[in-house]
Amino acid sequence: MSRIYLDHSSTTPVDPAVLRAMLPYFSDNFGNPSSIHSFGQEAQKAVDVARQKTADFLGSLSQEVIFTGSATEANNLAVLGIVGQIRRQHPKQPLHIIVSAIEHESVLAPARKAERDFGASVTYLPVDREGFVGANALRDALTENTVLVSIMYANNEIGTIQPVAEVAKIISNFRNELRIKNYELSKKSKPIIHNSSFLTPYFHTDAAQGALYLPMKVADLGVDALTLSGHKMYGPKGVGALYFKKGTLLDPLIVGAAQEYGKRAGTENVSCIVGLGEATALIPKWRAKNEELKELRDYFVEKIGERIPRAALNGAPENRLSNNANIRFDGVSSADLTLLLDQEEIAVSAGSACESKAQTDSHVLKALGLSVAQVRSSLRFSLGQATTRDDLDRVIEVLVKLVKKLRNF
Amino acid sequence: MSRIYLDHSSTTPVDPAVLRAMLPYFSDNFGNPSSIHSFGQEAQKAVDVARQKTADFLGSLSQEVIFTGSATEANNLAVLGIVGQIRRQHPKQPLHIIVSAIEHESVLAPARKAERDFGASVTYLPVDREGFVGANALRDALTENTVLVSIMYANNEIGTIQPVAEVAKIISNFRNELRIKNYELSKKSKPIIHNSSFLTPYFHTDAAQGALYLPMKVADLGVDALTLSGHKMYGPKGVGALYFKKGTLLDPLIVGAAQEYGKRAGTENVSCIVGLGEATALIPKWRAKNEELKELRDYFVEKIGERIPRAALNGAPENRLSNNANIRFDGVSSADLTLLLDQEEIAVSAGSACESKAQTDSHVLKALGLSVAQVRSSLRFSLGQATTRDDLDRVIEVLVKLVKKLRNF
Repeated sequence: MSRIYLDHSSTTPVDPAVLRAMLPYFSDNFGNPSSIHSFGQEAQKAVDVARQKTADFLGSLSQEVIFTGSATEANNLAVLGIVGQIRRQHPKQPLHIIVSAIEHESVLAPARKAERDFGASVTYLPVDREGFVGANALRDALTENTVLVSIMYANNEIGTIQPVAEVAKIISNFRNELRIKNYELSKKSKPIIHNSSFLTPYFHTDAAQGALYLPMKVADLGVDALTLSGHKMYGPKGVGALYFKKGTLLDPLIVGAAQEYGKRAGTENVSCIVGLGEATALIPKWRAKNEELKELRDYFVEKIGERIPRAALNGAPENRLSNNANIRFDGVSSADLTLLLDQEEIAVSAGSACESKAQTDSHVLKALGLSVAQVRSSLRFSLGQATTRDDLDRVIEVLVKLVKKLRNF
Repeated sequence: MSRIYLDHSSTTPVDPAVLRAMLPYFSDNFGNPSSIHSFGQEAQKAVDVARQKTADFLGSLSQEVIFTGSATEANNLAVLGIVGQIRRQHPKQPLHIIVSAIEHESVLAPARKAERDFGASVTYLPVDREGFVGANALRDALTENTVLVSIMYANNEIGTIQPVAEVAKIISNFRNELRIKNYELSKKSKPIIHNSSFLTPYFHTDAAQGALYLPMKVADLGVDALTLSGHKMYGPKGVGALYFKKGTLLDPLIVGAAQEYGKRAGTENVSCIVGLGEATALIPKWRAKNEELKELRDYFVEKIGERIPRAALNGAPENRLSNNANIRFDGVSSADLTLLLDQEEIAVSAGSACESKAQTDSHVLKALGLSVAQVRSSLRFSLGQATTRDDLDRVIEVLVKLVKKLRNF
């Protein structure tokens, strides 16, 4: 009996086709893209092709794509790079950042760092019971000092899909109002200086979890910056990408030579970059099976509802990633359940991988308004391309047994 | 006739044994080390083993090793992490950094960033004609505000090996003098506050180029922080390591979840980390062939001296990496020579890979006191484990022909 992996939101295996594409760039075409000889040129070409594939996936220019060492680094670069750059240009200006309360820690931590290092203030937008940010709350939070809004595309724990294009529209309307206001103030020679470029507030979205499932053309989404993760989409770990719209100024985090348009120094991780590019090229293939995956997930949720009393889905029934089921089993410790499932060779997660190790309660589930007891009885099941109905049937049988056992304990 | 690669200082191919060690961690053991289930534990174990191998190589504790996305990132973390942390603790204190004039750009650029962002002042230590930093110059540069000295172990362009242990001794003597001075001042209740911990100035060395050839036990070297690069030692690109001595405080550059002891957030690049660990484990094998490599290099330099008039070695004849030959051919443009060699399927570099693309004159060769004409006629040949005497004989023949041609042009 083989192990069953239902933790694809934590990480996905590298697709064999992706690995095949990567393999030549370890020991054979091993050049440094910065070298001008043929070894270097081959490596540079591989990076160029991967960048073009990623840009095609996003509908962006290739020079709008920066490869990083992880999606965490891309999120850091977006938040600290944008806010840091504005701070440098406007040393005295009050700066304001808006993030949702359910962002990944790799957005929340840079927001706190921007607070500490750049004196920015941060608004944490609440979400409703299903995990959606409210349009009115966002409108109310925007001020003329807001330089960045970062709201994730799809949540890593509950799979809630934010209406990113609508968020973008709210921000863009606000920009236009600012422009008019600024014009009028400028007639009184008092323009709102830091917004004089009319580009802020910038809008960044962490799309690491959504890439496999959701429309990702940046022009349609209306974002200024967007994060992708290699290992969340059947590509390798150790590589992320940041889309940043032409004209978006970024102060680099890692400095040195001029790789990645001067925005991220360091010899390119050629093989992993090739892997990320190839992974984006395979996404249409996964999307073709999206409905199937959703049916499997719905089957799973429904069966659990039938077979296990006092089990409930956390988050949104609709507008939810098709591979995500976050379920709470009242009266059961999800930490215990995770361990017992692991003994049965079933891999799931009680919240995000990062938080599960730190053993802190999920800030996402708390933001939904769940009680601590409910948070601690919640498990995330995230399906993947290899998941079968047989797998799910076995998981359900094991769950029925274990939940009963833990409740009787 | 196969291509000849004499640019190992830019990057090395991944050793087949290293790649074999990495392969299971792409599609099979693909877990996220932060996950607590068996997939995650396997990945965590692989990272732990790699960290232990790296620590063994350095003679350090495993928790003194942080894996990063590149040596550039490790250098950034050392410089900005140490200076940034001290700046946070002592917002008003004057801070001073010492670097050598021939550091890699990934140390120089963070030093400039520390100047800009933390108000630190930077001293660039000159080097002599052979590339050595002078002990007296270092002693003279140290002040009670010096918080960091970063001097590379071996230079990437000319291979000059700095006497790192002696540098460490000078710094440690200075620390002791400070301690005494501080004690005496404290009796008058005027201690030198930021040095009250007696740890500063910290001493960091970029050992990316030296790892294959030089003693690397951090206790013998007396360093507080040291940088390694995967792809300079037959490991993969996309991974570096920073040794930082227990007690060295670092403000992380990339924040989020608590990976790498909270010093570098982001899902671990498991396969590349495994590769770096394995690469360090193979180094004794390369070192056994070190004498052979040195003989080959000496043969090469000698033959060029015999066959090509007005050719001279840049840098030090002794205390030089055994694979490095940086040679100037008077009256020849090294840019042209590089291109013509490339057409003959011979890969060499006119300076560092980073600078060759930017087409700036080598700051290293300029620091030796070479004229611009001399700088622009210099080529770096860096040998590797696969280099044979036949390769070198062919390169010499081609060089004889091309240098003559370019001089007659």
